Amino acid sequence: MNNFTYFIPTRILFGAGQLAHLHEQQLPGKKALIVISSGRSMKDGGYLSRVEEQLDLAGVGSVLFDQIKPNPTLKNVMDGAAMAKENGCDFVVGLGGGSSMDAAKAIAFAAINPGYLWEYSFSMTGGKKTPVNAPLPIVAVTTTAGTGSEVDPWAVITKEETEEKSGFGFESMYPALSIVDSDLMMTVPPILTAYQGMDAFFHASESVINTKNHPMGEMFALKTIELLAACLPGAVKDGSDKEARAHVALANTLAGYYMLCTSAHSMEHAMSGFYPNLPHGAGLIMIAHAYYQHFADLHVCDGQMIKMAKAMGVENAVSGQEFVDALDKLLADCNVEALKMSEYGITPESLKKFPERARKVLGGDFSADPAVLTDNDILSIYQKSFR
Amino acid sequence: MNNFTYFIPTRILFGAGQLAHLHEQQLPGKKALIVISSGRSMKDGGYLSRVEEQLDLAGVGSVLFDQIKPNPTLKNVMDGAAMAKENGCDFVVGLGGGSSMDAAKAIAFAAINPGYLWEYSFSMTGGKKTPVNAPLPIVAVTTTAGTGSEVDPWAVITKEETEEKSGFGFESMYPALSIVDSDLMMTVPPILTAYQGMDAFFHASESVINTKNHPMGEMFALKTIELLAACLPGAVKDGSDKEARAHVALANTLAGYYMLCTSAHSMEHAMSGFYPNLPHGAGLIMIAHAYYQHFADLHVCDGQMIKMAKAMGVENAVSGQEFVDALDKLLADCNVEALKMSEYGITPESLKKFPERARKVLGGDFSADPAVLTDNDILSIYQKSFR
Repeated sequence: MNNFTYFIPTRILFGAGQLAHLHEQQLPGKKALIVISSGRSMKDGGYLSRVEEQLDLAGVGSVLFDQIKPNPTLKNVMDGAAMAKENGCDFVVGLGGGSSMDAAKAIAFAAINPGYLWEYSFSMTGGKKTPVNAPLPIVAVTTTAGTGSEVDPWAVITKEETEEKSGFGFESMYPALSIVDSDLMMTVPPILTAYQGMDAFFHASESVINTKNHPMGEMFALKTIELLAACLPGAVKDGSDKEARAHVALANTLAGYYMLCTSAHSMEHAMSGFYPNLPHGAGLIMIAHAYYQHFADLHVCDGQMIKMAKAMGVENAVSGQEFVDALDKLLADCNVEALKMSEYGITPESLKKFPERARKVLGGDFSADPAVLTDNDILSIYQKSFR
Repeated sequence: MNNFTYFIPTRILFGAGQLAHLHEQQLPGKKALIVISSGRSMKDGGYLSRVEEQLDLAGVGSVLFDQIKPNPTLKNVMDGAAMAKENGCDFVVGLGGGSSMDAAKAIAFAAINPGYLWEYSFSMTGGKKTPVNAPLPIVAVTTTAGTGSEVDPWAVITKEETEEKSGFGFESMYPALSIVDSDLMMTVPPILTAYQGMDAFFHASESVINTKNHPMGEMFALKTIELLAACLPGAVKDGSDKEARAHVALANTLAGYYMLCTSAHSMEHAMSGFYPNLPHGAGLIMIAHAYYQHFADLHVCDGQMIKMAKAMGVENAVSGQEFVDALDKLLADCNVEALKMSEYGITPESLKKFPERARKVLGGDFSADPAVLTDNDILSIYQKSFR
């Protein structure tokens, strides 16, 4: 059994209707910067006003920063941090999907550490400096079931000038409090429900085949896979199914508790780093079949793939291929089996620049693959995935 | 799906050999009160000197309090707190089994809150006062796999004058850091391995049949049950089996993450409250068959019992009875199927005073049973369990 450290200090309020209990919590400050996307959904859906009302009830002030892009940028973060400082905010509320929660964490960091966020980044052009201060406390209110950002200390931030998309985080960046209220997810459109749910699925499946896997993490990951295989197609087909939404939300949070990504996540970050309009979940889905088929063909993680197949309902699974087949079926059941890279502007020629970037941006993950991938292997996975 | 809150801020270092990494951690103070039992095992086994050495390496001072009884007493706690204050200790290390870890938590509380611990207790004669201060930070180093105390905020303390044994705890009493090093458990004798492992088992099984059960907790509990059914008999039969010890240790910690006790725990606390020589795990084992048989006969939690039976390897389980049968088999495989209350001085006559005490000492748990137990039901379970 691999040894492990487990530390997730975030308090989670989980379940339908939990947002209404936000005001009863001991909030970590007196004035919040509320961070939401630049789109309309948080306002039109009434989620923003409900969060503001909860903070009001708790006697906490707030100001709004509503500029976060789907792949949050370094500029987003520095603008938000400036606003927090100007307004004397002493904590940050991230309301929305992974982008808003990730941005909220990075803003909470940048608002209280001197200089430019990238000076602390461990990415290619990052300064890798040691933080001076713990970030402002973070409250996450998730409205999607996909990134697990509500229970991890990571923020994926894009530096536009260098086309870098990189994970940024320190242990101090765990949210102090997270609300996972599946009622806030009822209006997520089918295609995004599928993208986000499969993102959570891949957090789990990459953890299970990971060389650093251990039984506790595997427990989280297999439960995630079980819940998603059972409930994600239902949530995609009928978004008003409260029970399916709740189970998908739980799967996502469980996946967030334990996320040992392999190179598939690096490979996707290279794709959506170059093509920011490509949703992260969609990119992962595009390469999934070829990626897992590669390892199934090598028979380097048959036992782990069999466990995943069983969690997906293949009762007497005996081969890794049965996991790949179950994955293909799940993608088809969620209507995302034929996503096309070409629709996002990716060309066969452009694939060649991906392997090098995937290694550089989040290269560490390649060491966790069940077998070493060469640059040719990586390119081949991209090419087989191209449509 | 029941809603839930999940919050376990303890950092866990899990696995064989982890004690050697204690000095690398950011310790929560500069001078530790090390709390161990009044027995010889921590000294003779070299565990105490290894912990002292680790603290030395970290540049942290320590003083020793070696007076904890198997069921730690209120006097133990107040004596330890006085020693911590006299020596200027700013954190507490609990080294040993549940007794030492529980006592360490209560000492950490009493060392920094005015007055007598029982003034804050919620037990029968407890003062139920609100704490003034957060306890001193707590580090737990567990040498047994049974109580889950290393990942919960609870301390079971006995007030000898009133024969009360009661859980005491506040959210601030979670250990900051816990070491779960299965190498420290290799010398636990077979009978204690069985008692402690079954204690963990019942934490899990009571959680699964609990009316407040939810899918995340069930995940922890079913994994606990799976690991113990597979590995506890092996650890009992051959204590030197490192892999079995590691899996039993993991099961115990997982059970600690989620512990929604039903009335079985209250019923046992009444027994060992009156008869302090009775180990907690042994008491739970004595009443287990009759307790679960009662609910199996009522068919009030067949679905949950079937899940537990499946986790125990009964692949096509279809009835609650199959869980009770699997439990009986597990107890027999661990050589604890015929424990006798009479060997601890319990008489048939004395059973009559147990039901009232069970309700009073930790009465809240009765509301979590899958069906309401009357005083007659409780007495009947004790009587059927009497040998």
